[in-house]
Amino acid sequence: MTETETCPDGLVALANRMADASGAVIRRHFRQPFDIEQKVDSSPVTIADREAEQVIDRLLTEQRPLDGLIGEEFGARQPDADFVWVVDPIDGTRAFVTGKPTFGTLIACLRGEEPILGVIDQPIVGDRWVGAIGRPTLHNGTPARTRPCPSVAEARLSSTSPHAFDSDALAAFEQVRRAAMDTIYGSDCYAYGLLASGYLDLVVESGLRLHDFAALVAVVAGAGGTITDWQGQPMRRSSKGQVIAAGDRRAHAAALDLLGRKAA
Amino acid sequence: MTETETCPDGLVALANRMADASGAVIRRHFRQPFDIEQKVDSSPVTIADREAEQVIDRLLTEQRPLDGLIGEEFGARQPDADFVWVVDPIDGTRAFVTGKPTFGTLIACLRGEEPILGVIDQPIVGDRWVGAIGRPTLHNGTPARTRPCPSVAEARLSSTSPHAFDSDALAAFEQVRRAAMDTIYGSDCYAYGLLASGYLDLVVESGLRLHDFAALVAVVAGAGGTITDWQGQPMRRSSKGQVIAAGDRRAHAAALDLLGRKAA
Repeated sequence: MTETETCPDGLVALANRMADASGAVIRRHFRQPFDIEQKVDSSPVTIADREAEQVIDRLLTEQRPLDGLIGEEFGARQPDADFVWVVDPIDGTRAFVTGKPTFGTLIACLRGEEPILGVIDQPIVGDRWVGAIGRPTLHNGTPARTRPCPSVAEARLSSTSPHAFDSDALAAFEQVRRAAMDTIYGSDCYAYGLLASGYLDLVVESGLRLHDFAALVAVVAGAGGTITDWQGQPMRRSSKGQVIAAGDRRAHAAALDLLGRKAA
Repeated sequence: MTETETCPDGLVALANRMADASGAVIRRHFRQPFDIEQKVDSSPVTIADREAEQVIDRLLTEQRPLDGLIGEEFGARQPDADFVWVVDPIDGTRAFVTGKPTFGTLIACLRGEEPILGVIDQPIVGDRWVGAIGRPTLHNGTPARTRPCPSVAEARLSSTSPHAFDSDALAAFEQVRRAAMDTIYGSDCYAYGLLASGYLDLVVESGLRLHDFAALVAVVAGAGGTITDWQGQPMRRSSKGQVIAAGDRRAHAAALDLLGRKAA
């Protein structure tokens, strides 16, 4: 599928059905009483994670049995299929377990190396971003657009936690943070949706795994933003998990410079 | 009013009406388009802050004209009255402007030095905590209770941002953070509500002003938690803005020790 192609309606409709189903599961488990002595295996977040992945898996098996699935909980099935779905039912476990509705469900579809479809769903607040190649990103059904931001000095930056970086990555991140107008923490995948809708200008993170970043790509790109690794390369299936997303190409280029690893 | 007294029904009802009114204002302005070139004076957050404080002021003037009001936006009126209300319409400006529903409206009532009533209201998610002396804290009308947490090592810690501390305070905070099981950032006042409901165990912050902390006191205390300054003293009108809140008295004592400033 090239950049001039458009993601088929059927894939987008299926991704929406998956998010509807996972959201219903997750809402049942959010803020349920949790004994601190409880085993990790029986914690509400673990149960919600597994049940949400199962309902997504069931829909996929019914609708598109030839597609592959890489899930955060149950591993990979047919990972070499033409279309492979990548799912993280609860991105932002810390937010979920502390009752903060800033976690999200991430659903992506890859064709080969390329993420062609992504959903970021926040089922408590009721925020859903759907991005798909060749289509405008939708936020709750309405087109989302990033906002102009000509420089890092004018940028509102987000990152989940300064403690998520190793020391080299932290030093690079700090270059951007010190130059930015303002920094917020604690947003997980939600930040990329807010960037797509023009409320944030930059997100810089590292240590993300495929199921953390695959869904972000089409959401950001389809809203007019730029999302790459810290070398300025497109995010693909084999990418390492260093991500920089910007609403404005100029802020992206300037922040990449600050990361000390100029785009190729 | 002593600890054995109970906050009058009328004050609690008025605080709820204030939060209803401010929430309606704030919902109208949340995520409204905002030109980056726009003057601070005409930004949605400034407008929402002012309008919300005005509707609260109007209710107070109608219902209890003799009471004082200390607002974040318009300053103080009758600050030496027997009952003084302290209002921060949007605590968590950074969250509000970036479209994150983790900001909150803070409404407190002081009698003399003592906070006797506090509301933390999140009008987008629909989370409201109401704490009042002599009464159990309510979360959306249902009693909220903190959870047991015997040690810092078992505690989930929250703080708005590591960059909100000066260097001495950061060094003290880091003692607690390194000892804690886990740390989340970016929650503003919302963290104190989540602590009252037993989803978080510790909140450590500094640099808070009266309108940032006054409403937190009764919410945390009425849910079974402990909230003091970093010297272990009760938070009062004249307190400096270093706050430590814990769901369990044992975690509070241990964290105070770690802050290097043992309770008197």
